[in-house]
Amino acid sequence: MSSESARPVVRAFGDGEYEARLGRVRAAMQERYLQALVVSDPANMYYLCGYDGWSFYVPQALVVTAEGTLPFWIGRPQDANGARLTTNLDEDHIRWYPESYVQSSENHPIDGLVELLNDLGCASGRVGVEMDAYYFTAASWERLRASLPRASFSDATLLVGWCRFVKSPAEIELMRQAARVAARAMATAHEVIKPGVRECDAAARITAAQYEGADGVAGDYPAIIPLIPSRGRTSASHLTWVDRRYTPGDVVNLELSGCVRRYHAPLARTLCLADPPVVLADLAKVVEEGVAAALDAVRPGATCSDVEAVWRSVLTSHGYRKESRLGYSVGIGYPPDWGEHTASLRQADTTVLVAGATFHLIAGMWMEDHGFELSETFAVGEDGAEVLTSYPRRLLVGDNV
Amino acid sequence: MSSESARPVVRAFGDGEYEARLGRVRAAMQERYLQALVVSDPANMYYLCGYDGWSFYVPQALVVTAEGTLPFWIGRPQDANGARLTTNLDEDHIRWYPESYVQSSENHPIDGLVELLNDLGCASGRVGVEMDAYYFTAASWERLRASLPRASFSDATLLVGWCRFVKSPAEIELMRQAARVAARAMATAHEVIKPGVRECDAAARITAAQYEGADGVAGDYPAIIPLIPSRGRTSASHLTWVDRRYTPGDVVNLELSGCVRRYHAPLARTLCLADPPVVLADLAKVVEEGVAAALDAVRPGATCSDVEAVWRSVLTSHGYRKESRLGYSVGIGYPPDWGEHTASLRQADTTVLVAGATFHLIAGMWMEDHGFELSETFAVGEDGAEVLTSYPRRLLVGDNV
Repeated sequence: MSSESARPVVRAFGDGEYEARLGRVRAAMQERYLQALVVSDPANMYYLCGYDGWSFYVPQALVVTAEGTLPFWIGRPQDANGARLTTNLDEDHIRWYPESYVQSSENHPIDGLVELLNDLGCASGRVGVEMDAYYFTAASWERLRASLPRASFSDATLLVGWCRFVKSPAEIELMRQAARVAARAMATAHEVIKPGVRECDAAARITAAQYEGADGVAGDYPAIIPLIPSRGRTSASHLTWVDRRYTPGDVVNLELSGCVRRYHAPLARTLCLADPPVVLADLAKVVEEGVAAALDAVRPGATCSDVEAVWRSVLTSHGYRKESRLGYSVGIGYPPDWGEHTASLRQADTTVLVAGATFHLIAGMWMEDHGFELSETFAVGEDGAEVLTSYPRRLLVGDNV
Repeated sequence: MSSESARPVVRAFGDGEYEARLGRVRAAMQERYLQALVVSDPANMYYLCGYDGWSFYVPQALVVTAEGTLPFWIGRPQDANGARLTTNLDEDHIRWYPESYVQSSENHPIDGLVELLNDLGCASGRVGVEMDAYYFTAASWERLRASLPRASFSDATLLVGWCRFVKSPAEIELMRQAARVAARAMATAHEVIKPGVRECDAAARITAAQYEGADGVAGDYPAIIPLIPSRGRTSASHLTWVDRRYTPGDVVNLELSGCVRRYHAPLARTLCLADPPVVLADLAKVVEEGVAAALDAVRPGATCSDVEAVWRSVLTSHGYRKESRLGYSVGIGYPPDWGEHTASLRQADTTVLVAGATFHLIAGMWMEDHGFELSETFAVGEDGAEVLTSYPRRLLVGDNV
């Protein structure tokens, strides 16, 4: 066995960054008078302590207390070593519930969380929970509430999410690296997809590029697999490959992300394996114009709806419309999503853009029987959008044409 | 645009199989006096109608009514085409909520489900919900309950799961195909992982093999990425690659699955890039013996705990112990899990094995500073276990040794 001296913790940031994050979260907790915050979203857990494992398929959480320093990790016994190896938490801050609680009809992993909250003296306090976070199920909530009848619960779904909204320079640098991975994966798709090639083989090559990374930086697994629907399947937003070969004339949507240390930079394009039909070429021109105009409208002080309005006016002037939002805040992600669920680029969203916020602006047009996608990931800079992703911003045409 | 005649539905099975599945679900609903069942688990949605899209990051559901024929799909407008393209549901059975409900602070997608249940006359009936399913959040549950005050809710978390427990011959055939993909991915790992190679490049090659499939059958994306921790990280069960190169003497756990049309056949091995140290070789021998004995104990009529007891007695006789379960029912899966959450191979589980049930038997030994994994996917046959996966069942030694 190769023994490793001490703990080879592989967190992406220094202690200072984690302390600043916890400071922001505790300030937000104080505003809401929370004695404890139960963090279930794996992206939020990663953000606050670096914990990084595919263990979110069983209940686990971080508990942040109003007082104190480090948060408490609680999960399955066999994942405790994962916490030791990926965080700087000391033994007192790593807890676990009995293995027998997992997928049992009698016990439930939430019983371990209840015990921890009791230990921490929070059983009759005000406790924030992420009511709408992935992996905090209805059953977990019922069990928690029933087991702590004297606690007062408060929905804190986006409390950590809003703390993540503005990225530090170190975070944006990781997203720049992720953007280079995305560009490499897109170039791979552009090169590989041609008549006669199986869709699954294209997916294989694209994903390999995502994992290999770029410029010597290893890729991490993106929160979403490559969404690469072809032909009529481009009319739907979340389909992927099937067991068939591409044929001349195929249109393929390509939505994929680079990921470096859990930070994402998604990128979408549409590829046509023929001279584009007029209907598609026309749509592409309008979308290209709209995306350029929207990116030009990005600046600190503008709102999300301001940016969307610019896009929509371009669309309207050409007789098109799009019901769905134009984009969303992006950063750390775990399956099933790389979006942060805070700000959206859409009509009703009056969130003010501030320097350091990062978005995936995705102009996805899903029509009755076809679709077209064009997207960029950008950071809000002092002078406007810094577009992180870099690939020709147009309808792509296949190498076979 | 390449136009496609009619709907190119790509479901894995004929109508008869889906009718039989719905029949089993309706029978289970009748036993519980359910007027409607809200199915949120994406694996269950796929099982009942073939719906297959990466849209589970927003609330969506199938509603099965006690009377009637087809279930009702409800999701996001831009995913309705995905339902049209992957299911045989007609227009009346495909519903959607307004796009503005998505990640909004005012509305919630569950409002669309409420409207559907009202339409179906189930607002004051007995309604089953999957309380502990992934993607049915605490907030969704609170919204549903508050919006239907006259409904009587019943926890139906594993209702569909138990209907999935026994596989049809067609399902087992897909799992055999998935097992061949798993073997190919394992062979790729065995070949690629050697000193000097980056972990991410190994992950890239393994995943490419998973997607490429085997024997001309395309691979689908497994519900879990390859878990390939190395060195001290093998002591934790759910870690994966980091940005480093393998070195001589490294030990690498390899847990990966083949996936064909959402059916999984997971497979785990441990690879040592040196002559194995005695402590690891000894552990491997014991685990090999225990796994063989456990597989020999599989037969219709035996219980899950019977199989686990055989394994445990081997372990105990050699002075080892393992707290975590020895395996679980496996089949259809979406991120974050390929397990079915019904039967587990463990002490307290008295589930009786029946022909057609399928399990991932995984002997994962996570010790203080190292680990060892050995697994097989098997189907219960009339005469015992049919081991679907096929790869040398031992501690693997690297090509470099």
